[in-house]
Amino acid sequence: MHESKSRNINLYLFIFLFNLFFFSDLLPAMDGDTKTMTFLQEVVDILLAYIVESFDRDTKVIDFHYPNELLQMNNWELQEEPATLDDILISCRATLKYAIKTAHPRYFNQLSTGLDMVGLAADWLTSTANTNMFTYEVAPVFVLLEYVSLKKMREIIGWPDGRGDGIFSPGGAISNMYAMLLARFKMFPEVKEKGMSSVPRLVAFTSEHSHFSIKKGAAALGIGTESVICIKADESGKMIPADLERRILEAKQKGFVPFFVSATAGTTVYGAFDPLIAISDICKKYNIWMHVDGAWGGSLLMSRRHRWKLDGVERANSVTWNPHKMMSVPLQCSALLVREEGLMQNCNQMHACYLFQQDKHYDLSYDTGDKALQCGRHVDIFKLWLMWRAKGTIGFEAQIDKCLELSEYLYNKIKDREGYEMVFDGKPQHTNVCFWYLPPGIRYMEDKEERKKHLHKVAPVIKARMMEYGTTMVSYQPQGDKVNFFRMVISNPAATFEDIDFLIEEIERLGQDL
Amino acid sequence: MHESKSRNINLYLFIFLFNLFFFSDLLPAMDGDTKTMTFLQEVVDILLAYIVESFDRDTKVIDFHYPNELLQMNNWELQEEPATLDDILISCRATLKYAIKTAHPRYFNQLSTGLDMVGLAADWLTSTANTNMFTYEVAPVFVLLEYVSLKKMREIIGWPDGRGDGIFSPGGAISNMYAMLLARFKMFPEVKEKGMSSVPRLVAFTSEHSHFSIKKGAAALGIGTESVICIKADESGKMIPADLERRILEAKQKGFVPFFVSATAGTTVYGAFDPLIAISDICKKYNIWMHVDGAWGGSLLMSRRHRWKLDGVERANSVTWNPHKMMSVPLQCSALLVREEGLMQNCNQMHACYLFQQDKHYDLSYDTGDKALQCGRHVDIFKLWLMWRAKGTIGFEAQIDKCLELSEYLYNKIKDREGYEMVFDGKPQHTNVCFWYLPPGIRYMEDKEERKKHLHKVAPVIKARMMEYGTTMVSYQPQGDKVNFFRMVISNPAATFEDIDFLIEEIERLGQDL
Repeated sequence: MHESKSRNINLYLFIFLFNLFFFSDLLPAMDGDTKTMTFLQEVVDILLAYIVESFDRDTKVIDFHYPNELLQMNNWELQEEPATLDDILISCRATLKYAIKTAHPRYFNQLSTGLDMVGLAADWLTSTANTNMFTYEVAPVFVLLEYVSLKKMREIIGWPDGRGDGIFSPGGAISNMYAMLLARFKMFPEVKEKGMSSVPRLVAFTSEHSHFSIKKGAAALGIGTESVICIKADESGKMIPADLERRILEAKQKGFVPFFVSATAGTTVYGAFDPLIAISDICKKYNIWMHVDGAWGGSLLMSRRHRWKLDGVERANSVTWNPHKMMSVPLQCSALLVREEGLMQNCNQMHACYLFQQDKHYDLSYDTGDKALQCGRHVDIFKLWLMWRAKGTIGFEAQIDKCLELSEYLYNKIKDREGYEMVFDGKPQHTNVCFWYLPPGIRYMEDKEERKKHLHKVAPVIKARMMEYGTTMVSYQPQGDKVNFFRMVISNPAATFEDIDFLIEEIERLGQDL
Repeated sequence: MHESKSRNINLYLFIFLFNLFFFSDLLPAMDGDTKTMTFLQEVVDILLAYIVESFDRDTKVIDFHYPNELLQMNNWELQEEPATLDDILISCRATLKYAIKTAHPRYFNQLSTGLDMVGLAADWLTSTANTNMFTYEVAPVFVLLEYVSLKKMREIIGWPDGRGDGIFSPGGAISNMYAMLLARFKMFPEVKEKGMSSVPRLVAFTSEHSHFSIKKGAAALGIGTESVICIKADESGKMIPADLERRILEAKQKGFVPFFVSATAGTTVYGAFDPLIAISDICKKYNIWMHVDGAWGGSLLMSRRHRWKLDGVERANSVTWNPHKMMSVPLQCSALLVREEGLMQNCNQMHACYLFQQDKHYDLSYDTGDKALQCGRHVDIFKLWLMWRAKGTIGFEAQIDKCLELSEYLYNKIKDREGYEMVFDGKPQHTNVCFWYLPPGIRYMEDKEERKKHLHKVAPVIKARMMEYGTTMVSYQPQGDKVNFFRMVISNPAATFEDIDFLIEEIERLGQDL
């Protein structure tokens, strides 16, 4: 009652004042304190209402509009003149109205889903602290928390005493690029000064199911996509070690230098875990940097029940691990962990003397900025640290185990259900469940090619309808010679067995006429 | 009164409940609504108090502790078991207690200072929306706002009808790296597939005063730091075009291929603006991609009084412009603007079919993710857009003009003041005022070398004392053969003439005994 009373007072102020007030009435304006607090409180009230609504299953996941429609639905144009604070609040409401409710228990569209309340609080604090990770000088606490958290993650990987190095980077693609950069520098340190023309033709290896960022990284680093050799994966999407060794030998015969193998722990589509022990044996034999792209699957290291899927990860030279995916830390939060200490610094440092002054009065080893490719670096650590604090390692474990349990439930539910075909045999290793839904109309088609052609169109139509109804969202894609199928993934801690049931009912409701 | 009452009730709840409650009592827990709102409101109350305190000149900018001390001052370690929500709130308070108050009117330490209230509100909303920029599907509004804002920025640069391309990237260093990547691809598109071994030896040019990210980018992209040729700058830090042309010819004679010139609009230390028209003539003559690194100075384009300093920018092929610096958008917010449409897409796309499905039901040109080096990309646009809305273009202009006015005031105040020497002659072009403070003890030293040796140690000691007292923060560094000097920069909209006076008094108070 008191809260709604206080809100009513804000509303009163808002109606009578916010349409007269401007940004210039807020801090740092003289006597701007009260107006600022009222304004920010009003925004927070909008956000709190949005949060509560987002978790409500009766709310739509999305109020979908086509781009040209959405452009017309509000005045989004930037103007010469300032708008009132009233207009700013209206803009906030409009933005949220048409946003995807990523916290919604039935939002399954990406590897990053859900909204953690402690993580959100931490992100609000991060925004308020508004600083930069490059030096201890301007981010003392955050730099220490990054140090503490990276060490803990390395312990979990299994590196002795958590020794090694690492950094939080703007996403898994950049983390993977860092790994490739380090591998090249480790083998040919002269490349930093002399460039690729000073080194022999380098080749990297990754499975055909790996993430596109490996090729993207190779293109950017001047290695070239043709020097990324795609290794065959088995039926379930795991890299075949024998094919890796064959292709390494083939490359060596051509005079190329194999320098980097990226194994995937949790592929994007199938959720497959490459056999890390076998791969590490090969990397050791041929003296190649072993990277594990665990952007999606790395978090399983926190689960005593599932971490065997990453057996051998401790033999890797570097590991990508995105807490913003399976651990549902707010976007973004991606770590690259590196076994060798000092390498990142040597690889990337440029000794900018305006930032990393050598005559500072504190221990300079905490000025981590020269390790990074970036200069300024966003504070991504506090969300993870505060959530870890709130849940403990066992809380993350329980959350991850629950998602895997839900996906097993889904798999068991549909594997023999009429109208469903699994894309690959056997229980999925991660929460990815890949399947076709065959509407009755094409379920018994005799002509295989005709059937395939029809089936390819089913998932896009169901997905479009899901978005138009706004009831749920799940991803689909083709892969290799396999036509469009649904890739269901579960990383959303708000999801329950009933939501899985709902998804299947919804697919059938929206797809039965196709 | 009602607010404090409602706060007291929260406090009451907090004392009696938060030390019994855990993250698992919050949403998505059943009936978690009220607990969640109370918890988040408590966090917001902590943040609001911190904000108001940060703008108060009687508050310290920093409560400084050495890293090993700070590690002892709180239990920062991560545990197996969950902490109570009470402990989480305590952690939030501790984190803010030792944070730098970057909103403080006397915080001048970096190019990014201050805290904008509308920007902060927008960042809180962004965290709450918790989504990813890669597709229209998951970020419909934000993708449109990025489109609208980039177009507006290109109009301001002066490209016809705001045509062209661009992206918000994680900081100026990455924006500059994008530019170099595009320049290379434009000249040798085969480099994407075939790598650097397929192209001749490329060389890039930038002034000796330019940002270190140009070399860092060259190292990463496999070009090598030795292929970045540093062009001489004049006394005030501007690139000398004649030296650029000389070095281009020299490189060509050696058989190298000049592909990239990075001119700087607002150098990091001196705030110098390279002569863009003269540089663009040279770039045109030799068919070289012209990039303008306006990370720091680009915002002056919004000021009718100061934009002449970037005359010629419209001739550039690409421009880096960081609204998180001079426009004080919360960190981080950096844009790369590109004149040629379609190039970014061609350069970076990998056609990941799990993300950029070609059979989606909406206009695919809004799926911008394949242009990026990143896969997931943080939403950096809403802060800028909402602030622009709140201030209008004229509000940004006034804010920028005011900072330049303050720096002119500082320059005039110290240029003839006893005990001060300016690092370069003449009025600074940006808000960078570079100067030495000479304590009385060394002011009249005869031996030039001895004097220089002493002077080198002055700024670090004063800076250390500033941090220990916590009264203000300003940066220092050496540059070339110039010993440590203060680099004062003003981007903080909260700063006033009195704060400039305070800074000078404080330098003298802390440095007079040296």
